[in-house]
This record gives sequence, C-alpha cells and structure tokens, in this order.
Amino acid sequence: MNHAEKSLEMHKKWSGKLEISCRVPLDTTEDLSLAYTPGVAAACLEIKKDPKKSYELTRRSNLIAVITDGTAVLGLGNIGPLAAMPVMEGKCVLFKKFGDVDAIPLCINPVDTDEAVNTIKLLQGSFGGINLEDISAPRCFEIEERLKQCCDIPIFHDDQHGTAIVTLAAVLNAIRFTKKNISTVKTVVNGAGAAGTAIVKLLLSSGMKNITVCDREGAIYKSRRNLSGPKAELALITDNDSRKGSLSDVMKNADIFIGVSTSGCVTENMVRSMAADPIVFAMANPDPEIFPHEAKKAGAAVVGTGRSDFPNQINNVLVFPGIFRGALDARASEINDEMKKAAANAIVNFITDDELNADYIIPSSLNKELASAVAKATFDAAISSGVSGV
Amino acid sequence: MNHAEKSLEMHKKWSGKLEISCRVPLDTTEDLSLAYTPGVAAACLEIKKDPKKSYELTRRSNLIAVITDGTAVLGLGNIGPLAAMPVMEGKCVLFKKFGDVDAIPLCINPVDTDEAVNTIKLLQGSFGGINLEDISAPRCFEIEERLKQCCDIPIFHDDQHGTAIVTLAAVLNAIRFTKKNISTVKTVVNGAGAAGTAIVKLLLSSGMKNITVCDREGAIYKSRRNLSGPKAELALITDNDSRKGSLSDVMKNADIFIGVSTSGCVTENMVRSMAADPIVFAMANPDPEIFPHEAKKAGAAVVGTGRSDFPNQINNVLVFPGIFRGALDARASEINDEMKKAAANAIVNFITDDELNADYIIPSSLNKELASAVAKATFDAAISSGVSGV
Repeated sequence: MNHAEKSLEMHKKWSGKLEISCRVPLDTTEDLSLAYTPGVAAACLEIKKDPKKSYELTRRSNLIAVITDGTAVLGLGNIGPLAAMPVMEGKCVLFKKFGDVDAIPLCINPVDTDEAVNTIKLLQGSFGGINLEDISAPRCFEIEERLKQCCDIPIFHDDQHGTAIVTLAAVLNAIRFTKKNISTVKTVVNGAGAAGTAIVKLLLSSGMKNITVCDREGAIYKSRRNLSGPKAELALITDNDSRKGSLSDVMKNADIFIGVSTSGCVTENMVRSMAADPIVFAMANPDPEIFPHEAKKAGAAVVGTGRSDFPNQINNVLVFPGIFRGALDARASEINDEMKKAAANAIVNFITDDELNADYIIPSSLNKELASAVAKATFDAAISSGVSGV
Repeated sequence: MNHAEKSLEMHKKWSGKLEISCRVPLDTTEDLSLAYTPGVAAACLEIKKDPKKSYELTRRSNLIAVITDGTAVLGLGNIGPLAAMPVMEGKCVLFKKFGDVDAIPLCINPVDTDEAVNTIKLLQGSFGGINLEDISAPRCFEIEERLKQCCDIPIFHDDQHGTAIVTLAAVLNAIRFTKKNISTVKTVVNGAGAAGTAIVKLLLSSGMKNITVCDREGAIYKSRRNLSGPKAELALITDNDSRKGSLSDVMKNADIFIGVSTSGCVTENMVRSMAADPIVFAMANPDPEIFPHEAKKAGAAVVGTGRSDFPNQINNVLVFPGIFRGALDARASEINDEMKKAAANAIVNFITDDELNADYIIPSSLNKELASAVAKATFDAAISSGVSGV
C-alpha cells in the first residue's frame, strides 16, 4: 500500500479526523438546567451586559475557525470546498495537538470576494480568531485586508504568514550557520503568489535589503509589462529594476534561494552559479524545486524543503499552533508584524549554537515545546505592541 | 447561591462547554503525513471525483451546525449573537451527550433575511445538517423555507419542529391516558409564533381537526383585521372563523390547552371552564401559563410544562439529538413530516400502557435510550419516505 492509499485507508477508518467533546457534567437534571435552560440565561444576560464576557463564559477564548473556499488547496488547485475539507480537518487537529487551540473547519462555497468577506464578517463573533486557508492569490490578499478592517479578532492567512514566519526562521538560522549577514545577503524568491509575497514582505521588514522575486516569466521588476496589482507592489518594494532576466540569470551570485514554486525548476548548475555557501530552500510540494542530494552535490551549504522525509522541514505547523495560542492568550485584536517576528525568533532561538548544524536549522514538527515557545514569544509581543486585550 | 449564580459559576469555571478533540493518531512524522500533507491530498482528490465521499472521508456524516442570529433567545428576546452563544454551546453538548452528534455552534451577526440565507447556504457543504435556533418569527419561517429550497441537507428549526414533535408526543399520550380521540378533541393553542405555528401544522397533519389558535389579541380567525402572513395562514388552515373572542372565551369546553405564550395568562377558572378531563400543557419559560398545582386543583387530568422540576417536562431535548442522529445515519436530504411523526411516535411508544399515568406521559430528559428509539424511528421513516441517501 503506497502513502496515498494508506492515507485514504486512515480517512475511511476514522470518518472524520475531529469531533466535538463536552467539557461540562451532564448527568443530572440539575447539570442540564445549569448548562442549558433555564440556568444558561444567566450567562447570556452577563454577555449582553458586557460583550467581552463572551471570552469568559463561552469557548471563544480558545476557539478559532479554519476557513477556506477551496480555491488553492495544497498543490491541487481549485478543488472546491467539499474536497478541501480533509485538509481543513487536518489543520484543526494539528491546532489542537500542538497548540491546544480548538479549531472548527468551515468551507465556503466558491464565491466572489464580497460574499466571502461578508460571510466571514457575519460569523466573527463566534470565534476568537480566524485562520484563512488555501484561498487563491490575488483574492486572498484582498479578503484578508478587508477582514482585518472589519473584524476585531486576529485574521491570519496561514499560506501567507505561517509560511513567511517559518521561512524567516529558517533564513535567520541558515545565515547564523553560514555566518552571512541579513542586510547584505542577496536573495532570490521564486514564486509570487500568496506565500512568496508574504515571505518577501516579512524578510524586508526583518532587515533584508536585496531580494529579487521571480514568477514563471522570470524576474519581476518595475518596468516589466502587464504586472498585476500585487506583483506591481512586489516590484516596487524590492526595488530591483536593474535585476532582470530568467530565474537562472538572477540566481547567479545569490546567497539564498527560496522556492515556493514548482518542482524541478532549479538545476545543479543554477546552484553552482550562486555565491559561496549558498542556502537553498526548495519548498514546492510534494516534489521540491531541486532535491536535497542534488543541491548538496552542487555545493549548497544548507538545504531545506517542505517535506518531512528530509532534514530541515520548513513547515507551517511550526508556527500556526503556537502563534494562535499566544494571540488567544493575549486576546490580541490582530497578529501584527511584531508578533510574527517574535514567533520566528522563538523558532530561531529554540536551537542552541551547539545544536545548530547544516541539517538542523529548523526544529522537528513533532516538538510540542516549540509551540509553547512560539506562543510565549507571540503573547509577549502582543502585549508590548499594544494589541492585547488582557 | 441561587440557580442563576450557580450556572454563571459553572460557565466561568469551564470557560466554554465544548471543545474539539482529535480522533486520529498524531504521534509520529508518518501520522502527520497521513492526516495532513502530503497524504491528505488522496482524500481531497477522492472527494473531488465523487462529492458524496465527503460523508466517508470527513466528519460530515456526523456533523451539524447549530446556527442562530440571536434574535429570539429563550425568553430573553433579541440579545444578539454573542449573548446567544451559551445557549448554542449548551445545545451542542446535548446533541453530543444524547445523540452522539457532533454539533458546532455558529452565531451570525444580526442580518437581513437575504444575508442570513446566503451565509448559511454558502457554508452548507461543511455539514451533514443544520439546526436553526432562536431566530425570531416570522423571519424564521422564510429563512427555513428558502434554505430548504437551496440546500440538500436537513434544515431543521428546532424552536418550531422540535417543540412541535415533543408536543405531539405529549398530546398523543395524554389522549391515550384520558381516552380522548384525536379527531374529535377541541384544542386551543396559545401563541402564534414559531413554536405555536409548527405545533398546529403537525397536529393537523396527525389527524387533529378542531384547533383554535390565539395570540395576544385572542383567537385568530379568517376575517380578523391586520393578520400578518403566517397568522393569516394559521387562520386559513384552522378554519375557525366561527371561533372568535379572548383566550378565556375559546378555552370553554376545550379538551386540550397548549401554551407557548407568557407566564400566568391562564387562571384556574379558565381550566374549570374546559371539557371533562382537560389536558393542560403550559410550556412558557421560565414560569408556565399556569402552575401545575393550580391546574390540577382546577381539575386538569394531565398537566405538562417546559420545566425539569415538574412531572411531564415537554422539552425539545427529547427530540433533537435523536432526530438528527436518525437523519444523519440515513443521510437524509431533509427532515420531512413522516420523520417528525415517527419521532413523536417513538416517544409515545417509549412509555408502556402499564407505565402511563397522569405524571408520566413523557419520558425523562436524561434517558439516553429514548434518543436511540427516536433515531431508529426517524431513520426508518427517512428510508420509507424516500429521502435517504444510503
């Protein structure tokens, strides 16, 4: 039985990966009358008087929604909300397992941007936070931005920010290992979708200066024709009008390659053309832009991928349970850049100088202590940046 | 500490009555890769090929949403979605406890009917059924009707149909006990909102012929001025143009009083004016239309209320966990009248002739076997009425 068959088998066996459980006693008539009518009216009235009490008297303080419209699921594309549900359920159980965050999966039928925003906006009171998932670019940018304007709970598009945070952590530790300098390294990001865009923004905001972004047509620069909104913005903020050409062209003398693109698009020769001690993060799923043994053969000092069967798995699961745990504990109204950078630094600092090596710049996805460290850092940053409600 | 304080204390202690739990192992890297990426893609593709597989490979087969807009919560009125959440959570844990149904509470910000319908419609693919809750009349009728048109899963407004089903069961057993005849009894229903309307329709569809409905202004009859849409329909179907006057007027010689109205509106003298062996169901919450000891003093043969501290608690909890368990097991596309009547009859038959007495026409809310009996009857009726998907 191959891996896909094994997973199908598992899904059939359990018929759903999550379930609801009851936290309160319900054994006697009195239990019932306290948890439900007539006693429950007291909790309702208390919240009516002071809406903030919803965080004390309901599950809101620990509950988020994982919401998708199924338009950009894994590498499978627009497979629709029903088919997206196994991923959302998987995400929800990882939230619980690693962050003790209760997460409810919601799939919205394919809709226009206005409808998606409105639907989520109308439901926001049910939750302490919203994790957007697998929504196609560029609409994911607009949906997230507009929700941030009209919601007072954290809105976090994990494909953008979870990926950006764990990538920032990987970059910082790879730089630490290779003794490069963030303000002088030359970086190429291949892929200008949700993940690539967020990665570039977070790297810039963390002190990186020299970044070239590529899409399928090569480098994105200001005077390039037919740039769409988000790509035009990328051209502007990376200020790379002088860096034109193909991926292969711009990878020459680069220190860092970050791929959130398609499998096999990087060759050994392209890695050989990079600067000394090149760092290669080939995160395309399921198959990377270049396999680790090839990149290493071509001289890569550090290699990371999105896969669990190679060292240095650069995976969102290192981020989302902890960052929401911290945001919920702080009752944060948003997840801002300070919190994102704090989360990345918690991952960086989780590995000591003695432990750090080419095959260990990123902690294991199974490490539960990591989520606590990320949560604490996020919580502290929410407080110090003034977005905490506690 | 009074009951309200005790309930508040309980809500504070648990901070939410439900949580999400994980059904699958997540201890090894392989577990993760089966439940989440990359393995999960196999389940996604399977559902994309055949959307019905969502019932096998996700929790949809056991998952419903409990949805409110907070416009008619308990007897508290329009308290809004945040304040409604404790009731929704209570409902969800009762679904789990008695029906092993996983239920997610969703509160929609107060919206117009179009928005409410659209929001729920867009989310339907996430669930195997939708329980509408505490939505004010008359919009609850339109919302439910329109959702039934556009959804292929059961849509069930519990305040209407749960109440109607348990009331029908109570009526049938009270008739059985007093040896009255459903086709000849004279019944007065006080309250023409969501519950009253559904009760009248289900009683008519079960063979009752003589029903008079009252609202605050007294009997509802065809030629009465200013009748709104649903009330005009009630006047039409109860065909009672000859029965005019106040509640007190129409209760004379009635066999059955069903109150879903306001506390204290029925006096002992009104009960005394009823036919021999009168049946009084005073279901206003928290205080009934007339207290049981008063009704009995005035000659009532059978008395029921909505309260757990009196005999014959006519409570929805006897219905909703079982009816959704049955509907989900049958993958029913709707909950139709056949299923509702079957559920009522399951409650009726749960009490044997030997057990039946004036204080025991309705089983205890704590009885878990009852939900199984209701589920089985509902399941069978779904199959025989042709709405089952299995």
